Amino acid sequence: MPFAEALFEDVRKRTADTVGVSREPYGTGEQTAVDAVARAGGELGLEIKHDPFGNVYLTMPGRDRSAPGWITGSHVDSVPLGGNFDGFAGVVAGLTALAAFRKAGLAPQFDVTVMGIRAEEASSWYGGAHDGHIGSRAALGLLPTAELDSAVQSRTGTSLREQMRKAGFDPDAVGRGKPYLDPARYCGYLELHIEQGPVLEARGFPVGVVTGIRGATRARSCQCIGSYTHSGAVPHEYRSDAVMAVVELVRELDLEWERVREDGGDLVFTVGKLYTDAKVHALTKVPGEANFVLDFRSQDDAILQQVRVAAERLALEIGQRRRVRFDLGSFSLHRPAAMDPEFRRTLLSGCQDLGIRAMEIPSGAGHDAQDFAHAGFRSAMIFVRNSHGSHNPDEAMAIGDFAFGTRLLAWKLLQGA
Amino acid sequence: MPFAEALFEDVRKRTADTVGVSREPYGTGEQTAVDAVARAGGELGLEIKHDPFGNVYLTMPGRDRSAPGWITGSHVDSVPLGGNFDGFAGVVAGLTALAAFRKAGLAPQFDVTVMGIRAEEASSWYGGAHDGHIGSRAALGLLPTAELDSAVQSRTGTSLREQMRKAGFDPDAVGRGKPYLDPARYCGYLELHIEQGPVLEARGFPVGVVTGIRGATRARSCQCIGSYTHSGAVPHEYRSDAVMAVVELVRELDLEWERVREDGGDLVFTVGKLYTDAKVHALTKVPGEANFVLDFRSQDDAILQQVRVAAERLALEIGQRRRVRFDLGSFSLHRPAAMDPEFRRTLLSGCQDLGIRAMEIPSGAGHDAQDFAHAGFRSAMIFVRNSHGSHNPDEAMAIGDFAFGTRLLAWKLLQGA
Repeated sequence: MPFAEALFEDVRKRTADTVGVSREPYGTGEQTAVDAVARAGGELGLEIKHDPFGNVYLTMPGRDRSAPGWITGSHVDSVPLGGNFDGFAGVVAGLTALAAFRKAGLAPQFDVTVMGIRAEEASSWYGGAHDGHIGSRAALGLLPTAELDSAVQSRTGTSLREQMRKAGFDPDAVGRGKPYLDPARYCGYLELHIEQGPVLEARGFPVGVVTGIRGATRARSCQCIGSYTHSGAVPHEYRSDAVMAVVELVRELDLEWERVREDGGDLVFTVGKLYTDAKVHALTKVPGEANFVLDFRSQDDAILQQVRVAAERLALEIGQRRRVRFDLGSFSLHRPAAMDPEFRRTLLSGCQDLGIRAMEIPSGAGHDAQDFAHAGFRSAMIFVRNSHGSHNPDEAMAIGDFAFGTRLLAWKLLQGA
Repeated sequence: MPFAEALFEDVRKRTADTVGVSREPYGTGEQTAVDAVARAGGELGLEIKHDPFGNVYLTMPGRDRSAPGWITGSHVDSVPLGGNFDGFAGVVAGLTALAAFRKAGLAPQFDVTVMGIRAEEASSWYGGAHDGHIGSRAALGLLPTAELDSAVQSRTGTSLREQMRKAGFDPDAVGRGKPYLDPARYCGYLELHIEQGPVLEARGFPVGVVTGIRGATRARSCQCIGSYTHSGAVPHEYRSDAVMAVVELVRELDLEWERVREDGGDLVFTVGKLYTDAKVHALTKVPGEANFVLDFRSQDDAILQQVRVAAERLALEIGQRRRVRFDLGSFSLHRPAAMDPEFRRTLLSGCQDLGIRAMEIPSGAGHDAQDFAHAGFRSAMIFVRNSHGSHNPDEAMAIGDFAFGTRLLAWKLLQGA
C-alpha cells in the first residue's frame, strides 16, 4: 500500500519525538498532521473544508450529491510520546480508500467525507475539568462551553479557549447556532482504529467489528481516612486501618466484577492508583490514610449503575464496621455508545465476502465514534489488530492487517447506509 | 511527686524541639538526659557507673551486697519530636523509688541499680541494617559488631560506630570479652514504661502487668510486578493487574488474622505502606506494579511462622493465577520475649495489696526488656496508662497513674526475686 505507507511515514517523521510521536492538540504536531492530510486530499482532488474548531474535511463527491453521504475518519492528534497509528490510521484508511476509488475510476454513489479530527487525546495534555474528544464534540455540538475555560494545558496553564485561538481557530463558535455536523445530512459515521487491547492478536483475527464503546463511571480521588497508630501496640478492635478497609472494599468490588462476568455482563474494573501517604506511612504504623481511584467500564448503562451503587454501599458498610471514613467523591459518568446494529451486520457479512477473518469485539477505550453515536449518527467502527497496546511508542500494526481493515471500510463506503 | 515531676520537667525543657522532645541516640538530647539522670543519682548519693556504650548505672547498695541485685530502668533517648515519657518514665520511676527509700530511711535487701539506656529508638534515627535497641544489646552482648557499620545516621550518613566514638564511647568494646551485664549477677530486670497503645485507657486501668513482648516477622520491601495496560481495552483474562493481586493477598491475610483471633491466638497484622508508582500510575491504566510491606507481631513464635508461610503460599498461588510476580523479599524475624511468670504473678498480687487496679496486657511494641529476657535475665514490665499513643509529642500520662506504677515498682524492688 504505497499511498498509505508514504503518508504514515511522512507524518511520523515530521512529528517524531525522543521516542514515538507527539501531536499535541492545537499544537505544532497536530497541525503538521492536519496539513499533511489536507495536502494529500488536495493531491487526490478532494474538496477541502475546515470547521471553526480546526477539524479538516476532505470530500469525494458522490454520483448523487443530494443524498446523505458518509463521513469517515478519526483523530490526528496523539498522546505525548505516542504511536503513529492511534487515530491517524483511521484518517489514512479513509484517504487510502478514496485514492483507490480514484485510481480505479470509481465514483461512490454518495459523497464520502474523510474527517481529520482534532484533540481527541486532550485528556493526556489538558488537566482540569473536561471530557476530552474536543474536536468531534465541538463539531457535533456536544462540547459545553465551560470546558473551554476549565480545560487547562497541563504544562503551560493555558486554557483550551486561549490555545484554540492561538492556533487560529474560533472557540467562540462552540455552542453557537446549529452544530457544524448535522446527522440528517449523513448516512453514517465509520471509523477505523487500531485495537488498543490484546484481544485480536491473542485470538488471531486481523480485524474486529466493534459491538459498542464502553461507557465509564469513575471516581478520581477516593480517600479513606482512619488513624495512624503503633502497629504493634494497638489491637484489632482499636484500629482504624485505612489500608485494610480499602483492601476489603476493592476485593469485594473485584468479586462483584467476577459475578458480572459469570452472568455474561460486560465490565472491566481498574484501581489504577492506590497509595498510602509517603510523607507519613511507615512499616510500623497502622496507616491512617489511603488514596485510590475507581474506573468501571461497560457497554451496559445498568451495569455501570449497579457497580457504582455497590461501591457506595460497601464504602458505607465497611467504613462503619472498621471505624474509618470513606470519601469516594463524585462519580463521573460517560454513557456507553452502541454501534449501529445494521452496520455491524453488514460489516460482518462484508468480511465474509472479502475473505477477511474477523470477530466482534467491544471497544474498551473511548473513540470519536461514541460522540457521533451520541449525536444521533448511525456509527460503526472497524478495529485493526495491533501489538503492545496503545498510548505508547511501541504500538505495532502490520500494514497487511491495515489493508484488510481499509478494504472493509472501502467496501462499506461504496454502499449506502 | 515533686522529685519525679521536677526531673521530668528539667529534661523536657532542655531537650524540647519545635514540638515535643528530640533526644537523638549518641547525640545532644540523649546526652542531656543521661547527664540529668546522673546528676539526680549523685544528689541521692547513689553509686554512678558508665559502660563503654554510654549507658549509665546508678546503684543503691543493698543490705546484702553479695547477693544478686535488681536492675531497673528504661531508655533515655526518644524518637524525633517524640514525647517526654516514652522510655524516660522508666528511668525516673527507678530513681523516684530510690529517692523514696532514701527519704524513708529504707535500705533495700539487695542492690538496686537504675539503668539509663541509650539508643533504644535508633530505628527512628538510623537507616541501614540494624535492629535498634543499641544500648541494651551492646551491654548484654547481643549486638552484632556488623551493625556498628551497617547502621547509618539517616540525616548525616555517619555510621553508628563513628557516632558512638564521636559521643565519647567505645564501639570497639562491642562483642569484646564477656558481656558488660551478666544475668548471674542480677536477680532480675524490671522496666516501667508508658503503654504505647490505647488498651489501659479504653478499659480504665491505670496500670498493666505485661505478659510478654510481641516478636515480629516483617517484609520491608514487597513488590508485585504485573503489566501496565489500558484500563478500558484489556479484558480480565489478559490483565496482569498488580493492585488486584496485592489486594487479594492482603485480604486473605486479613482473614487469616481473623481466624487466629477467633482461635484465641495473639497476632497483629499491618500493611503500613501500599503504593502504586506515582511516576507511572494513572486512572486509566491497569497498574503494572504495586509495592507494600508486611508487619506481623505475636507473642507466639508458632503463629509468626504460620502467617509467614501463609503469605508465601498465597503470593505464589495468587501470582500464578493472576499472571503477576510477587517478590516478598526476605522476612526479618524478631523473637517474642516472654515475661517471667513468677514476676507477673507477684506484680499482680502486689497490685491487690497496694489497691492498684491493673490488668494483664501484651506489649506490642519492642522494649529493652525483650533484650534482657533474651539474654537470660528474668524480666518483667509495668505499663502505665497513656493517651494518644506514643512516638508523637501528644503522649499524655497522668502523674497519678505514674505514681501507681512507681509504687508497684518500688514494692517489687524491696523484695528479692
